[in-house]
Amino acid sequence: MAREAWLRAQDEAWVNPSGPYRDAARVRLRLEGARIALGALMGAAPDRVVFVSGATEAANVVAVHLARTLPADAWVAINPTEHPCVIAAFAAAFGGRRVELPVSESGLIDPDSVQAVLERPESEGKVRVVVVMAANNETGVVQPWTALARVCRSRGIELVCDASQWLGKLPAAGLGVADWLLASGHKFGAPKGVGFLLRGPQADGFHGQLGGEQQRGHRGGTEDYPGVAAMLAALAEAEQSKVLWESARVADRDEFERSLQRALPGAVVVGRGVERLWNTVAVTLPRHENQRWVARMDKRGFAISTGSACASGKEGPSHVLAAMGIEPERMRRVVRLSSGWDTSASDWNDLLQAMVEVGAELDRGA
Amino acid sequence: MAREAWLRAQDEAWVNPSGPYRDAARVRLRLEGARIALGALMGAAPDRVVFVSGATEAANVVAVHLARTLPADAWVAINPTEHPCVIAAFAAAFGGRRVELPVSESGLIDPDSVQAVLERPESEGKVRVVVVMAANNETGVVQPWTALARVCRSRGIELVCDASQWLGKLPAAGLGVADWLLASGHKFGAPKGVGFLLRGPQADGFHGQLGGEQQRGHRGGTEDYPGVAAMLAALAEAEQSKVLWESARVADRDEFERSLQRALPGAVVVGRGVERLWNTVAVTLPRHENQRWVARMDKRGFAISTGSACASGKEGPSHVLAAMGIEPERMRRVVRLSSGWDTSASDWNDLLQAMVEVGAELDRGA
Repeated sequence: MAREAWLRAQDEAWVNPSGPYRDAARVRLRLEGARIALGALMGAAPDRVVFVSGATEAANVVAVHLARTLPADAWVAINPTEHPCVIAAFAAAFGGRRVELPVSESGLIDPDSVQAVLERPESEGKVRVVVVMAANNETGVVQPWTALARVCRSRGIELVCDASQWLGKLPAAGLGVADWLLASGHKFGAPKGVGFLLRGPQADGFHGQLGGEQQRGHRGGTEDYPGVAAMLAALAEAEQSKVLWESARVADRDEFERSLQRALPGAVVVGRGVERLWNTVAVTLPRHENQRWVARMDKRGFAISTGSACASGKEGPSHVLAAMGIEPERMRRVVRLSSGWDTSASDWNDLLQAMVEVGAELDRGA
Repeated sequence: MAREAWLRAQDEAWVNPSGPYRDAARVRLRLEGARIALGALMGAAPDRVVFVSGATEAANVVAVHLARTLPADAWVAINPTEHPCVIAAFAAAFGGRRVELPVSESGLIDPDSVQAVLERPESEGKVRVVVVMAANNETGVVQPWTALARVCRSRGIELVCDASQWLGKLPAAGLGVADWLLASGHKFGAPKGVGFLLRGPQADGFHGQLGGEQQRGHRGGTEDYPGVAAMLAALAEAEQSKVLWESARVADRDEFERSLQRALPGAVVVGRGVERLWNTVAVTLPRHENQRWVARMDKRGFAISTGSACASGKEGPSHVLAAMGIEPERMRRVVRLSSGWDTSASDWNDLLQAMVEVGAELDRGA
C-alpha cells in the first residue's frame, strides 16, 4: 500500500507543490487532502498537522519552540523513559529547568504522581510542559496519555506526546488530545525520512526549520508529497485492518511469554502486568550476557536486540530499564524481541525453540 | 537510476542500519560506502558527509552550530541572493551580527569585493563566516566559489556554500573546498526528503538535530538508507553522463536567448554576460505583468514561473533581483524558464513560439 502510493505519487505528483502552475496546484490539493485525512485519524484540526522528516526532527523543533515561546523560567517535567532524541532535545532546550517524572517498577507514569509532582512547592506553577510518550520503544509499555492530557489541561500545561511506537499498532483515534504529538512514518510502514507532528492548537506562530513559507511557515523546505502519500496510505491501512487484529496478537504474545517462563525458569518479562504493545517483549533472561544471546540467535536467523536500535552497541546500559529500577547486573541479561503483523503463533514457537537451544548451548559453554 | 536504487534498497536494505544484527551491519556497510562515494565526488573526506533531510535542514543546523561554537561577537558576511532558507537560518542564528556582501548588476559576488568587506575597519577580524552559494536558483548565476574559498582560507574564515542548484548540473569535483556545503537530493534526481551536508573539516564535534548516536553523533535520527542510495545513484549518473553534455545545453539556451531578444525586442536576460547554469533563464519581458504570462503559458502546457518556487505567490518582489539592483517595475516583468537534460533545441523553439503568441495576445488585450 505505502509503496504503491509512493510510486504513484512519484509518477503523478512529483512537481514542487509550491510552484505557481497548475500541476503544482494539483499536488498542493493532494498534500492538503493528506493533511486533513491524517488529522482526522487523530481527531486533530488539519492546520495542526506539520509534515517533517521524522520524530527526531519533531522532538528537536518542538523543544526549541517551547523553550523560545514560554516564559524564561518555565520548567519541563519529563518521563525518563522517553526516546533518547526526546530527552536530548529537551535537555538542550531547557537546560537545568527540568524535573523527571517518577516511573513505576513496571514502567508506568501514573497520572496521580504527575499531579503530585506538579503540586510540589518547588515546581508549583513553574512546570509548563509535561513530556510523556504514548508507548515505549524498549519495553512496549503503554502510558495513560488520555488521563495525563486531562491532568495537564486542567492546569494549562502543554502535553508533548511521542506517538512513534503507538501509531500503526494501536488506534490513532484521540491522540490529538495531546498538545504536541510526534511521529515517524517508517515506524508504521512508510519509507524512512518522513514523519509529522501535531502542533499546539493555539500555536499558530509555530515554526520549526526556517526557510520558505511552505506549510504556512510552520516548516521551511520543499514538501515531500510522495513521502506524505506513502505515510498516509500506511497509516490508513493500519487503521482499517491491522489494529483490529490487536487482541489476537496480544494473545499470541502472552502465550509465548508463558511458554518462555516455563522453558527458561527465572526469565522475567519487563513491564509484566501492565498494558504493553503486542509487538515488543523485553525479557530478563536467567543467565548469560545479552550480547551472547543476540549473536547466537542472529546465526539462527532471529534478529533480536539488546535495547533500542539507536542505542545498541553504542552506549552504556539502557536508561529505560535504569529508570524502572532494574539494576545493572540484571540489565545485562535483557533482550528485546519484536514481532510484526505477520508473526504467527508458530513463529513465536520457533523463536522459543531457538532460545531454548541457545540457552542450552550457553549453559554447556559451547 | 535513482528510482531503481531506491526500490532495490527498500527490498534489500530496509532494516535500521543501527541495529545489532547482521542484516543491520550489511546496511551500515552500504551506508558507509555511500558516504565514501559521495565525499569522493567532491574531494571531501567521508567523515565530513552528514546525511540530512535536505538543504533547508542543513542550512538551519549549520547556522545554529556556527553561532553556538564561534565567539559570541563573531559576525557573518552573507550574499543577499542566497536561498530564503539560508538567509532565514543565518538571520535567526546571528541576529544583527550580519553584513551583506555587495552583488554586481549581473548577480556576481566578486572575490575582491569580499576581500574589501573583510578589510573594512568595522568588520576586520570580526567576520568569521562567509556565506555564498555555488549557483543561484532564480537566475542560474554561478559564483566563483574556488576563488572565494581561497580568500576565506587565507584569513581563517569559514566558507558556507549552498550547492543545491549546482550539483547534478555542473561537476561536483572540488566543492569540498568549502568548509560547509549544503545540498538537496531532489534537485538532482533523488526523491524529496533526502540531502546531505559536508561539515567543516575540523568540526569533529558538530551536531545538528539531537537524538541517538547515529552518524557519529552528527545527526540523530534513523538513517534513510534507501533515500541515500537513490541520491548517490542520481548524482553518480549526473556526473558520469549528464554534466558532460553541458556545453551543448548552454549552446541551445544561448540560441534561445538570442531568438527571444529578436522576437520580443526589449526582453533582457538577467545575468547576461556572466556564467550561468544551462537550465535556468530569468528574463525581463518588455511588457505585461509576469503573472499574466505565467497563466497563459500554463494553459499552453508550459510551466514557467515568476521566481523561486518557495516564494511564488507567497511573498513580495524577489530579493534576488532586488539585490541585483533591478527596480520593482522591471521585477514585475521577470519570468523564470527552466529546462531539463532532455530539453532539445526544438523544445526551446516551441517555448519561443508560445511566448511570441502569448505576447501578441496580451498586446491585443485578448
